[in-house]
Order: sequence, then structure tokens, then C-alpha cells
Amino acid sequence: MNTCKFLLTAWLLACLQLTSQAATPPPAAPQKPAPITRIDPTFWWVGMKNPRLQLLVHGPGIAESKVEMPAYPGVTLDGFQRLESPNYLLVNLTISPQARPGKLRLQFSGPRKASYDYELRARTTPNDPSKVQGISSADFIYLLMPDRFANGDPKNDNIKGMRAPVVARDSMYARHGGDLKGIADHFDYFKELGVTAIWPTPIVENDMRKVSYHGYALTDYYKVDPRYGSTDDYVRFVQRAHQQGLKVIHDVVLNHMGSENYLFKDQPAKDWFHQWPTFTRGNYRDGTVNDPYVSALDRQLFSTTWFDTSMPDPAQENPLVATYLIQNFLWWVELAGFDGYRIDTYTYSDPKFLMDWGQAILDEYPRLGMFGETWMQPAEGVSQQAFWVRNVFPPVNGFKSNLPGAIDFLLHSAIQEALTKEAGWAEGIAKLYYTLQGDWMYEDAGRNVLFLDNHDVSRIFSVLGEDLRKQKMALAWLLTCRGIPQLYYGTEVLMKNFSNPDGLVRADFPGGWPADKRSAFTAAGRTPQEEEMFSYVRTLAQYRKTHPVLHSGKLMHFVPENGVYTYFRYDEQGNTVMVMMNGSQEAKAVDMARFAERTKDYTAARDVLSGAAVADLQKVSVPPYTALVWELRR
Amino acid sequence: MNTCKFLLTAWLLACLQLTSQAATPPPAAPQKPAPITRIDPTFWWVGMKNPRLQLLVHGPGIAESKVEMPAYPGVTLDGFQRLESPNYLLVNLTISPQARPGKLRLQFSGPRKASYDYELRARTTPNDPSKVQGISSADFIYLLMPDRFANGDPKNDNIKGMRAPVVARDSMYARHGGDLKGIADHFDYFKELGVTAIWPTPIVENDMRKVSYHGYALTDYYKVDPRYGSTDDYVRFVQRAHQQGLKVIHDVVLNHMGSENYLFKDQPAKDWFHQWPTFTRGNYRDGTVNDPYVSALDRQLFSTTWFDTSMPDPAQENPLVATYLIQNFLWWVELAGFDGYRIDTYTYSDPKFLMDWGQAILDEYPRLGMFGETWMQPAEGVSQQAFWVRNVFPPVNGFKSNLPGAIDFLLHSAIQEALTKEAGWAEGIAKLYYTLQGDWMYEDAGRNVLFLDNHDVSRIFSVLGEDLRKQKMALAWLLTCRGIPQLYYGTEVLMKNFSNPDGLVRADFPGGWPADKRSAFTAAGRTPQEEEMFSYVRTLAQYRKTHPVLHSGKLMHFVPENGVYTYFRYDEQGNTVMVMMNGSQEAKAVDMARFAERTKDYTAARDVLSGAAVADLQKVSVPPYTALVWELRR
Repeated sequence: MNTCKFLLTAWLLACLQLTSQAATPPPAAPQKPAPITRIDPTFWWVGMKNPRLQLLVHGPGIAESKVEMPAYPGVTLDGFQRLESPNYLLVNLTISPQARPGKLRLQFSGPRKASYDYELRARTTPNDPSKVQGISSADFIYLLMPDRFANGDPKNDNIKGMRAPVVARDSMYARHGGDLKGIADHFDYFKELGVTAIWPTPIVENDMRKVSYHGYALTDYYKVDPRYGSTDDYVRFVQRAHQQGLKVIHDVVLNHMGSENYLFKDQPAKDWFHQWPTFTRGNYRDGTVNDPYVSALDRQLFSTTWFDTSMPDPAQENPLVATYLIQNFLWWVELAGFDGYRIDTYTYSDPKFLMDWGQAILDEYPRLGMFGETWMQPAEGVSQQAFWVRNVFPPVNGFKSNLPGAIDFLLHSAIQEALTKEAGWAEGIAKLYYTLQGDWMYEDAGRNVLFLDNHDVSRIFSVLGEDLRKQKMALAWLLTCRGIPQLYYGTEVLMKNFSNPDGLVRADFPGGWPADKRSAFTAAGRTPQEEEMFSYVRTLAQYRKTHPVLHSGKLMHFVPENGVYTYFRYDEQGNTVMVMMNGSQEAKAVDMARFAERTKDYTAARDVLSGAAVADLQKVSVPPYTALVWELRR
Repeated sequence: MNTCKFLLTAWLLACLQLTSQAATPPPAAPQKPAPITRIDPTFWWVGMKNPRLQLLVHGPGIAESKVEMPAYPGVTLDGFQRLESPNYLLVNLTISPQARPGKLRLQFSGPRKASYDYELRARTTPNDPSKVQGISSADFIYLLMPDRFANGDPKNDNIKGMRAPVVARDSMYARHGGDLKGIADHFDYFKELGVTAIWPTPIVENDMRKVSYHGYALTDYYKVDPRYGSTDDYVRFVQRAHQQGLKVIHDVVLNHMGSENYLFKDQPAKDWFHQWPTFTRGNYRDGTVNDPYVSALDRQLFSTTWFDTSMPDPAQENPLVATYLIQNFLWWVELAGFDGYRIDTYTYSDPKFLMDWGQAILDEYPRLGMFGETWMQPAEGVSQQAFWVRNVFPPVNGFKSNLPGAIDFLLHSAIQEALTKEAGWAEGIAKLYYTLQGDWMYEDAGRNVLFLDNHDVSRIFSVLGEDLRKQKMALAWLLTCRGIPQLYYGTEVLMKNFSNPDGLVRADFPGGWPADKRSAFTAAGRTPQEEEMFSYVRTLAQYRKTHPVLHSGKLMHFVPENGVYTYFRYDEQGNTVMVMMNGSQEAKAVDMARFAERTKDYTAARDVLSGAAVADLQKVSVPPYTALVWELRR
């Protein structure tokens, strides 16, 4: 609804502009051909639920032109609109459900003449169940950085004409050459491990001079970075993943773009970007959005500053900018048919825009999975994380998030505290208990993404002091707690390092490059300890894959006692999995009587990790830093 | 509304009982006079908004009697009801607005004969503005333990017939002899300090064998503990306080009582108490009330266990028990006309009962102040504290609190962290910022009570390593932040000690006993350091008292930078007070430009603490661990 309003506003504005332009014709000028550099969206589809389309036409001096469209059944030209820059023109179309695919001609007349055949395609997502499958707690996500995972096609390592054209594997801040083919070459690896969904960091063009391997400085909203493959390669990549039973998550950046983006270098209008007299570092405090005591300055320093010196901040409160972004992210779903969006720096965007954007995407693709980066300090509490997703709260300052799930930074802190800090009344493993208690504030906490590490934080093996027992425990929790588990590439083979300052948490996956001395993709290439970890993850992930009780089963947990935290996943079909985590240095004997509510119908169990039968459910002993995962049996 | 329903239910039950009793008369028994031991409430008033009254009549074998009432204009006997015990009878009356004060006769006939003249008094609170003044952020509360503050009347130290009859000042767990007169003797002291409200820990009878000096083990709901004075003394105490411009807060225990309470020793019915086969220690986890994953056992272990071995848990979900408690706490307000209720162990009571109790009290006394002990772990977050008071949340499991304010344990933790932990992104002084940010979840966070210490926690001077700079900073915050500040007796003269295990945080106030070698009540009796602290508190509290901007002015705070946290209280009348807290070991130069929103109309300031004029508002230097409190001037 909101987006319709957005687009309607833009369309009405354009109509008004048309009228006023008719009244004051632009000054006569020498008639030169006006090349159309590009039109965004680069093409579109017939049959979208929202019939409005706003084209951003770019070309030198194009603003001086008028636009006409020879008759195209089902499509009307509603108007066009000049912006501050002479090099842009907005063209508003309405595409009725009766319109058929084809090319409609846009004729630019007046001082600048040109014509452009704009393509309208037939949609593929509505009738193809393999497309836009969504992401749910049945999934197990594998997060990787395409540049750092595997180099499947050395031919695209060095691309002429790009600003950082060469690979340099000896620098953590340069390109290393990984690509889409490298990922696709390891679909079998993911399947063996039990992964069901791949989340690459952004694959869209980042043609920056430096440090653009991470993908979060978009320079072209409508193009895959050629160093990963072509845009068509990406469409095929998703298709192949689906054929292999793997889903794909597309990493979205709404908040900022790269300073080499054509939109920034040749700005449609000043009010398309947040402008500061000099670069002004933001405060990175999401609490300013709902702080009752916030100053106007602090509020502004969060939402309208640039994320970094090379990352300008689009002014999403400008309806034209909002429309540009919304259309782009509809375009990618329809084009590639992937299964979910991961939204970068979610909290930094304009709150009203976030609501409109989310509504527009879900109106068109209700099945699409969505979760956002809602980076949170433990001091902010679960309420603040819940504030950024669908929750039980009333709107605050007009904002009520429609984002289905958060990347659960608070449970990320909690699991780390559980395994590194001594168990206390509310500390150590009790932190897990208290953090989950806060789930009453979410509409559905099961849509949150659980993780132990990612590309921005220290790798969990290092955080846990390279203690394999603790790492296993963390994984057991990840794969049995509520929500959607996410693994960071290499955690399954004990990749390590701290987040700052050397960038080594983004090291190459061993074996991803032809020259690598060993391959951690194969059992033969893994050290015994790596193999032990890999096998642990595989066992649990494969078990999880085939046991819906760990996806959608209810959760019941018990107040931690004596450093031991125990919870159950259970369903109406009589399936129950017990997880007992001993977050202490000593073995603990646990009297099971207090768990009778969940154990009374059972007499035995199977240890999911070892496969061993457990005959006694009365007294249980848990070794130090160990998680028992037991399937209860009658 | 809910309470009316409660009382109506009880009344209807009684009427039904009347009918069924008529059908099955009690067995004939030898006719002996049946002494009425007591009737609760011990008397009542005409003209209460709720016309229903349920009397709990206690006397050996009284249950075998029938009840009649000779005509009393405006009062009807609605019925009576037997309970499980032979020694109780409930009598339900309706007192119409037309009823006049007087004594109505209750005649007990049948096998047990007796009569009782029950007193109906005229109300005093509605027409006396000095009564039930309420508690607001204009107040400054002084919390003290009556047994430990001052012994004004040595004659009531040792009371014959009580279970712990003698005082023993050498034991922290025995009675020390403080009393109401001791408090009243120091009204001038409070006024000098700038205190406006006195909160004594409970003054109701605690006739227990051991450790009853704290007052939280009620043995008679209708009587002041004789060691503090008589019930009439208490009424006069409140009256005198009001005459002196001091308010009184009455400390209420709803959750438990002392095991020597007559109601427990001779239980009306088994379902008046939560019964456990053996003493079962509770889990003390309030999160179980709204935890979506809670087990039934953990839920029960919070709300229905005894608070301690000698503190039985009344079954508040029993409407008869609820009525008993509600009437008792209406009785105290009408009797004494004090200004607010502090509700002990608020979270432990039955949630539905809490709603009914609060509604009943506020229906009758809308002006009454109310705040609850909502003891909270930092791990629980502001949302959990807000859950227990009026908030923006929808009901959870049918519970939506109607409590106006919380005792702000989260800010208590935060101010301690601010002054003991190095300033970090979200640690140290930033914890204050983040905790206050969460205020969006309260209906009105200004009704929360701020405190630095109380009788259950370590004294702030010890927590702060006996650093006078930090103690001053803590006090500056206490008296300028939003909410109702509360001081614990002796903090103004640097009383110290940690909470466990020696009980020394409840030490006697120096000078409260005739034999004391020195009196901290007088400047002459205070050490120079104590005098410095006392004077600091007095200066700020007196300033606060006369500057409404610190009561009801808006709050604006700025993201802490470089270990300095700055906030402003300001109002529409152009008053602005700036507080700048340097939570670090180094002096800090602060560029004031970022505070322009609040400082632009001012050119100078007055340092509230030193009285000095401040000429420059551009650059400010804050010494280490210091809070500047500046009244801005044009």
C-alpha cells in the first residue's frame, strides 16, 4: 500500500511536470543526437502486481528532451519529469495486466533526439515453484565471501577497465579471485555438510579503487560484478543451486552505495544524497531512532551520515530515490528467482523507507525470505533487536518494522558469553536463558538467523580459545535452538582469527584455489581435528535436515542450574530432542526429575552425535563443556 | 473494575453458601459462647467507592454459627460463608453511600452464640488535602529501616509477650530499638537535607522469633509493630510528617507473610496458602512469567514458592485471599492517609492478583503514589523491568501491569557500571545512555524510583571504592536524572559496607541512640569528609526542591563521547540545567558545539554546586570523575 502511494506520488509529480513543461518550453539549442547511456531498471516485466514503473533515463543533456511513446497495447506513458541534473529524465509508465512482452519504443524529441527500445519480459517466478522458495527455520545457511571462497574461473580474475583490475592474494584488502563458478563447483560440499542455503556477500558490481572485495559498495545496481561472472551467470547459478536442492540468499545494500556509482558521480539531484559540508562520521547508534531523549543531531548522525568515506548515503526519504531502490530490488528477485534477501545495515536506512521497501517487496513476493543485519550491543537488550523486526510493540515515531527476521546479534553475544564466562546467576550460560526469554517481544523469533561468526566479527574458534569442546558445543546449540542457523565459511574446518585489524577472518578457504597446497573440501585434505569438527557439523546438520522437530518444533527450556542449561524441542507427533549444555569446567551429574514435563513419556534415548543408545533417563552425567543432544525414545 | 468483580464473586459465593447452608443445617452441638477473637478488617468506613465489604471473622468453632444483623440503615448483610477451618466465617456486607458512621451489631446464633459491634467510621482522606498527596518526581525519598535509624522511645524496646522481646545492638540480626518516635525526632534533619518523603521499611507487626527487624514477615496485617509504637502512633506520625511538609511512603508486602501470622497458624482453608510437601526453594526468576519457553514447573517455582522458610506464600489467585489483601491495603490508606505505597517483591505475586489489587487501590485512591520492587538483572534488560509497570506492550499471558512505577534496578546497575567500569562503546558510562534509551517502553519512566543503594544491596560508597569524587557524581546523577530519587539512610554521611553476609549495610545511623558517641545528624558530629558529602547532597537536593525543571522538565541526552556523558533537563519556561559526567580518570576538554540544540539560547551558566558563575559556554573542561551541574543563563 505504502509503496503504491510512493509510486503514485512520483507519477503524479511527473504528470504535473509534463503540464508545466508544456507551458514553459526549454530554450532552443543545436539539435544533436542524445545518446541514452542507460535506463534503470534495465528492463522490466509485464504482469507485476504493481502496474507502475518509473524509468530513470540517463544521457548527456537528455533532460532537455520530451518523451513520446508510439502505441503499445496495455502500456501508457503517464508523463516524464526533469530533475536538477541535465543528464536525467524520469519516465512514468503504467503497465496493465493485459500488456504483452515485447519492446516498447521511447522517442526523445526536442533539442535532443533519440529513441530507445525498452524491453518488457514475461515473468518466470509466479509459475516456477523452484523460484523464490523462501528461507525458513528448516534451512541451514552457509555464509561465504565469493572473492574468498573458491576461484572457479581464473579468466575473470583480472578484468580490464575496472578500477582495481588485478588479484593479489597476499593482501587481505585486495581481490583474491573467487567467483560464482568457484561456489557452484562446491555444491556437493555444501550438500555433504547438510547446508540447504548459500548466502554469498553481495555479488553486485563494486568497481571501487580499493577494498571492494567485500561487495558492500555498489557501483551498479543492475549488474553482477564481472569478477564473479556475468549477470546471466548469476541467474544460471541460482537455477543450478535450485536444481541441486540448494537455496540462494541475495545480500542487499539499501543504506549506502560506492562513491564510484554513476548515480553519485553524476547525481540526478542534490536531494538524492545526504550531503555534508565535509565527511562527517556517523555515530552508529541505532538507539537514536527510538530514544525518547534523543537530540536532533544524534538522530541525524545515525541515519543520514555516510557509512564510510567512500560510501555515500542515498536520501531514501526522497520518494524518487525510494522508488529507484524498490524497483531495483524487485528486479533482482524477478530476474534471478533466488529465495531470500539478507539486508545489510538494516537499521541505518530511513525508517519510513524501510517500511515501504519491505512492503513493496513482500507485496510482490510474499514467499521471499527476509532477514536484516540488526547489529546490536548486549547493552541494548532484546527489545531493541525486536524493535527492528516484526514485534508486539506499537509503532514508535511512526515506525513499525515489517522485516520478518533479525540476524540475532544478541544470541551471538550470548552464546559467546555462555562459553567464555563462568556460569553465574545471570552470567555465562544463564545469558542464553535470559536472552531467549526475551523472545516474547517478537512476532516470531523463529525467523531470526542464529550465527556464531560472520565476516565482520572474530571467528568463533578464536573467541573460544581454540577449544574444540566449546566449538562443538556452540555448533550443537546453533543447530538445535530456535531460528535459522547460519554457518560462516570455514567454521566447519576450524578457520580462526580475530576480526581486527588484519582482515584475516576473511581468509581464503583452503583448497579454493588451484595452487592451494591442500583442500579442506576433502577429508583427505583436512587435519584430524578439522575432520572431527567437519564430521560433527555434518552429523548434526544432516540430522537436523531430516528432523522437522528441530525446525518448527516447540522450544521449552529450564532455568539453568549449577552451570547446566537444558532445553527441549518437541512437537505434536511425539518427537522430542533434549539438549543439555554443561557450560562449566567440571562434569555435572543432573537429576532429570525436574524435566518430567518433557521426559515423562520416554524411557530411553539415542545420542544423536554418537548414535549410541541411552538406557537411563533418570540420572545423567554431562562432561565439562559438552552439549548432549538426545533424541528421546519410548 | 476487576476488583469489583473479585468482590462480587466472593459476595455471590457467600450468597450461594447461605442458601446451601439453609438446606443442610450444621449438626447440633452443645451451646457454648463463641468468643470472636478478631474480625478483619478491624473496622471500616462508610462512603468507600466500593460498597462491598467482606469480613473475616475468627473465633474457635465460629463456623458453626449463623449470622444475623439487626437493621442498620444503609447496610445489608448479603450472606455468610464457611471455610474449611471451623474457626472462620466470612460475612459479606454492602454499605450504601447513605450509611452513616456507627456500630453495627453482628449476631452469631446457632450452636455458637456471640455478638460483635463492628465499627463503621467516617472517612477522612477525601476532604483533607494533606492526606494521600501522592509521590512524584518532585519528591526526594529517604529510605530508612525504623529499627536501625533512631531510638526515640527506649520504653518500647523490649515488649513482653513478643517472640523476640529484647534488643541486642551487637547483633546485626537482632532488634536494635529504633522506632517511629526516633524518625519523627529527625524531621528537621530530613528537611535540612532536602528530603520530601520518608519511606520506612514495613512498620507492621513482625512478631517472629528471629531476624524480624526488617519488617517483611508480617504477623498481623492490622497492627503496627509495638516496638515501633502503636497503630495510633503511626497515624499521628503521618499527620505530623504532613504538618512538616514531609510525605510518608508505606512499605507493603503482598507476596508473603511471617509464619507466625495467625492466618497461617490457623489457616482458614488449605487453599489460602501455596502448600508444598516440604520447603521448596523458589527460583527467584521473574522472567518465567512472560517467558514463551517456560516450563510449568519453573513457572510454579517462581510465583507459588515461599519466599523463605519462614515466609509462607498466600494463594492470591483464591478470590477470598485476594479480597482479604485488597481490603487490608485500602484500610491502611484510609486509616493513616500516607502518600504512597512501595510494594515489596512485586513480581512474585500472582500476576492477575496484582492487576486486581492495583486497580482496587487506585480506584479508591487515584492520587496515591505507587512503585514496586521489581528486582532485575542487567541481563533481563529494560523491557523486562518495563513489563512490570505501565508500558507500551500488549498483555502477555493476560497480564498488563497497572503499577505506575518501578524501583529502577537497571539504572541502579547502570550508574554503578558507569562509575566502576572503563568507558567503552556500550560499557561504563555508556551503559547509562543505553539504559535510558529503553525508556520508550514505559508509559511514563518519570514515575520510576532511582536509587544508588538500599537495604538489600551493597552501599554505594563501598561499591565505588570509597571514592568521594565518584560518590558525588552518583548523587549528582540521582538528583538530576528523570524519575523520583531515593536516598538510603546514611549514604549522605558515607555509611559503607557490602551487602553480604554480615548485614552491615543495615547498621545503625550514628547518633540515633542516646548512648552513641557521636551524632552524624549534626555538623559537629560529622567527620570533614562526611560533612562534605552531606553538604553536597543538601546543596543539590535543596536546589532540586525549588527547581521544577529537575522534576518535570524534559530530558535530552547526547551519545557519550570520549567517556563524557552529557544531558539536559529543560522546560517550556526557558529553564535549562546541563549535567556533564566525566566517567574517566582524565580531565576532558569538551567542545560544546554539538549541544547547540540546548545551549544556543544561553551565553553563561551558574555552577549549581559551587554557586560560581560560568562565563564561557564554548569550551568546557571536566575534571576526572566529576559531574558538572550548570544552570544555563542568558
